[in-house]
Amino acid sequence: MSKEIGITSKKNEDFSEWYTQVVLKAHLADYAPVKGLIVLRPYGYSIWESLKLSLDQKLKATGHENGFLPVLIPESLLSKESDHFAGFTPEVFWVTHSGETEIGDRLALRPTSEALAYSMYSKWIKSWRDLPVKINFWNTALRAEIKATKPFLRTSEFLWQEGHTVHTTREEAEKEVIEILEMYKKTVEEELAIPVITGRKSDKEKFVGAVYTTTMESIMPDGKALQMGTSHFLGQNFSKPFDVKFLDKQNVETFAWQTSWGVSWRLIGALIMIHGDDKGLVLPPRVAPIQTVIVPIYYSPSDMKLVLDKATEIKEILAKHNLRVHIDSRDEVTPGYKFHDWEMKGVPLRIEIGPKDIAKGKMVLVRRDSLKKSDLPFVDTENGIINMLNDIQQTLFENAKSLLREKTKHVTDFEIFKTEMEKGAFLHSPWCGKQECEETIKETTGADIRVIPFDAKNSDSKCIICNNASTTTAIFARSY
Amino acid sequence: MSKEIGITSKKNEDFSEWYTQVVLKAHLADYAPVKGLIVLRPYGYSIWESLKLSLDQKLKATGHENGFLPVLIPESLLSKESDHFAGFTPEVFWVTHSGETEIGDRLALRPTSEALAYSMYSKWIKSWRDLPVKINFWNTALRAEIKATKPFLRTSEFLWQEGHTVHTTREEAEKEVIEILEMYKKTVEEELAIPVITGRKSDKEKFVGAVYTTTMESIMPDGKALQMGTSHFLGQNFSKPFDVKFLDKQNVETFAWQTSWGVSWRLIGALIMIHGDDKGLVLPPRVAPIQTVIVPIYYSPSDMKLVLDKATEIKEILAKHNLRVHIDSRDEVTPGYKFHDWEMKGVPLRIEIGPKDIAKGKMVLVRRDSLKKSDLPFVDTENGIINMLNDIQQTLFENAKSLLREKTKHVTDFEIFKTEMEKGAFLHSPWCGKQECEETIKETTGADIRVIPFDAKNSDSKCIICNNASTTTAIFARSY
Repeated sequence: MSKEIGITSKKNEDFSEWYTQVVLKAHLADYAPVKGLIVLRPYGYSIWESLKLSLDQKLKATGHENGFLPVLIPESLLSKESDHFAGFTPEVFWVTHSGETEIGDRLALRPTSEALAYSMYSKWIKSWRDLPVKINFWNTALRAEIKATKPFLRTSEFLWQEGHTVHTTREEAEKEVIEILEMYKKTVEEELAIPVITGRKSDKEKFVGAVYTTTMESIMPDGKALQMGTSHFLGQNFSKPFDVKFLDKQNVETFAWQTSWGVSWRLIGALIMIHGDDKGLVLPPRVAPIQTVIVPIYYSPSDMKLVLDKATEIKEILAKHNLRVHIDSRDEVTPGYKFHDWEMKGVPLRIEIGPKDIAKGKMVLVRRDSLKKSDLPFVDTENGIINMLNDIQQTLFENAKSLLREKTKHVTDFEIFKTEMEKGAFLHSPWCGKQECEETIKETTGADIRVIPFDAKNSDSKCIICNNASTTTAIFARSY
Repeated sequence: MSKEIGITSKKNEDFSEWYTQVVLKAHLADYAPVKGLIVLRPYGYSIWESLKLSLDQKLKATGHENGFLPVLIPESLLSKESDHFAGFTPEVFWVTHSGETEIGDRLALRPTSEALAYSMYSKWIKSWRDLPVKINFWNTALRAEIKATKPFLRTSEFLWQEGHTVHTTREEAEKEVIEILEMYKKTVEEELAIPVITGRKSDKEKFVGAVYTTTMESIMPDGKALQMGTSHFLGQNFSKPFDVKFLDKQNVETFAWQTSWGVSWRLIGALIMIHGDDKGLVLPPRVAPIQTVIVPIYYSPSDMKLVLDKATEIKEILAKHNLRVHIDSRDEVTPGYKFHDWEMKGVPLRIEIGPKDIAKGKMVLVRRDSLKKSDLPFVDTENGIINMLNDIQQTLFENAKSLLREKTKHVTDFEIFKTEMEKGAFLHSPWCGKQECEETIKETTGADIRVIPFDAKNSDSKCIICNNASTTTAIFARSY
C-alpha cells in the first residue's frame, strides 16, 4: 500500500490530522457538500447498527418502546419552556418556506424533542393507568455547528437516540434515570471496550431545563474528556409548561415526573480515538462490521482453488456461529496490500492461508491489537477463533482502562492542577460547590467539571480554588 | 367499551372517517402540532419495525448495505438534474437561517436523495473495481403536502427507505431494478398479506429523471389504487450531471448505470384499509406487535392465581417460539371491555381462560379475522396456536386476493369504462401508448394509468379512447 493510501500521520504527533485520516481512509464517513455535515459510508454505519441493536435490545427488555416524531417543531411550541429554548436557539436551523410559500410560525429542525414529545404525551396521558410511558426515538438531532467539522464529534446533524419517559412518582423517575445510565455504561464497556466514569453534572453543566443531569465520561488519548451519554431527571420542569398530568389513584390531578436521555454517534468518535493506532482503526470484535478477514495466499492457478476452497470452508464454519467473516479474493492486489488495507480498516483478526499452511493443517492468525502472529490448527478453528476474538475484546478494554488510570490524577494544589491540565488529564480535585470557582477554573485553565462521580468522597477539606470548605471531589478536564 | 371509545363509523359507509378513527383509536399514530405531520405511537411504529426488519434482511442477503445521508441538501446541488429538480421544487421545505444567521445557498430538506447520494458516489467511485455500489438508506423524506393530512398516506414527512445503486452495465442495473421490485412484492405479500400487481409506469407517471419506473400497485376497498413501492431504472440520466463515472477494464472512462427504489410507511396505510373491519384494525400475525393476547377470566381472588398462573405458563411456552404474547391482567376493566379493546387494536388471536376452562384442560381461542371461537386443549398449545396464526395470515391474504379480483375488470368500451370507474375499480383496458389518450382519461374520469403489468397482453385491437391500434393493456384507476 502506498503512503498516500495508508495513514500518513502519527497518532501521538498530530492527533487531529490522524483522526481525520482514519475516518476518511477507513471509509467510515465523508464530508457532505454542506459545511458541518457528514455522510456515513456503509462501513461506518454498520458500527452504528451494531451499537443500536445492542442498546435497543436492552431497552426493549426493560419495557421501553420505540416511536417516531417528525423533525419539524413550531417555534411557538419550542419556546414554551423558556430556559430550554434559550439554550438551543442560537444553533437552531429554521425552515421558513415550503415551495414558494412563507410559513407563519417558523419551523425548527429538531435540536432535541422534549417540547414535541411532551405536547403529545399531554394528549395521551389521562390517568395513572396510562403510566409509565417509556418511549425511545432513534433519529437525528440538528444543531448548527460554527466550528470546523469533526466527524462524529462536531457535526450539525448527528445520529442519536433520545428517550422520553413519564412516571407517577419522583422516585420511579429517578430510578429510571439511573437504570438508563447503567444500561449505557454496560453497552459502552461491553460493546465498545471503553471504560467510563458515571456521576452527576454540576448545575452549570446540566441539560437546560433539567433538575439534574447524570453523565458518563471518558478520557481520550490527547487528555481531553468526551461526554459519552447523559440521562436527565427533569422533575416536573417540563410537565408543568407542557401540561403532562394525570389523575392519580385518589382521582387528584397531578403533574407527572419525567426523564430524558440520549447517546449519539460520538461514541464512534471515542472508539476511533481510544483504540486506533498509527496503522489506522482498531475495532473491538463486538461492533466490527467484519470480525475476521481471510486473506488467501497463492501464486499459481492450481493453488488458487485449493486455498479458496479452504477459505470458504473456514468461513462457513465461523458463519454458523454468526461471526462476520470476509474472504478477500481480489486478484488485482497483492496479499501485502490486503494486510495493510484491513489493518487500516481495523478488522480485529486476520487469517492467512497458503498452500504450505494447508499442507501443515493450520492457518496463520494475526491479531489487529498487538499484530502478533500465531498458528491455529484447522481442527481448532471454532474455539481458537472465538476465544481469540473474545481475548481481543477484553485486551482492548484492559488497554483502555490503563489509559484512563494513567490520565487520572488526584490534585489538591491549584498550581499543580494548572501544570497537569496543560498535559491533558482527568483531575480529581476538591470543590466547594460554588459556580464561581467552576468559572475561575474554566477561565484560567479551559477545564470544566466533567462529572461528580457517584462514589466521590469529600476526603480533602478545602476547595482547590477558594480554600473554603469543600463539599465533594469533582473531575475536571478540558473536553470535546 | 363505550361507543365513544370504539370505532363509531362503518367501513363501507364512511371509509375516510372509519380510517382516521382506526388510526387514532388503535394508537397507531396521532397528529403532530404542524399540519401535515404525524407522530407514530409505539403500536404503529412496531409494525414499521417488523416490516423494516424483514426487508432489511432481504437487502443484506443480496449484498446491499445501509448508510446515512444528512437531511440538508444545498439548492445548488439539488438543481443539477433539472427535470428532477422541477418535479420536486413546489413541495420542498427550505431552511434559510441557522440561529440568527441567514444561509446563502438555501438548504432543502431531503425530498429524496438522488442528488446528494450521487455527488458522494462521484467521489467514491474511480474504477470498475469499486462497483457495484448498493447502498440503502432508512430515513424520512419531506415533501410539503397542501391537501388535508391523511396518516400514512398523505403527510409532509414520511418514513421510508431509499436505495441507490451503481453498476458497470445497463443489463446489471436493469436486473437490479427487477430484483428489488420482486423483493418488495415478496415482502408485501408475505408480511402484510396484500397482493400486488407489478409492471411499468407510463412515461407520464414515471419518476422525474428516470428512464423508466417499475411499480407495484394494489387496490383499496373503496376502489382507489395505492402505489405500494417503486423501483426506477435511471440509466445514465443522473450519472452524467453528477459525474458518476468509472474506469472500465480497458481503462476507458465510462458513465455508470444507476437505479433507485423505495417503499414507505404508506404500506401501513394499505394494511389498515385492506384488512380492517367495523370493529377496527385487523393485523396479519407476521407484523402484529402483539400476535396473541391472553385475557384471564376470574371473579374470585382464589381463581385469580389459578388463571394467571396458567396464562403465564402459556405465554412462556409461546415465547420459546418467539411469538409476541401479552397477558392483559388489568383489574380495572371487565373481560368484555378487553375483548373489544384488543379487537379494535387488531390482535390476530385472543386466548380466553377461566377456571372452568382449566378444569376441562383447554383454552378458548377467538380469531380476529372471522371472530370464530374454538377450544384448544392445553396439550396442543404450541401447534394449535402456531397453526392458527399461520392460517390467519393465509386467510387474510386470500381475502385480499378476492378483493383484488372483485375490483378488477377488463373493459374495452369507454362508456362502460366511465360507469365502472365511478364505482372504483382496477380497469384493464387497451391503450395506444399516447400520452394524449392518458390525459383524456384523466380529465374525463380522474383515473391514471397505474401500471402496465409485466404480463400485459395486447389482446384487443383498439385503444379505448382514440380507437387507433392499441399497443398494450394498461390498468387504469383513481388513486391515493
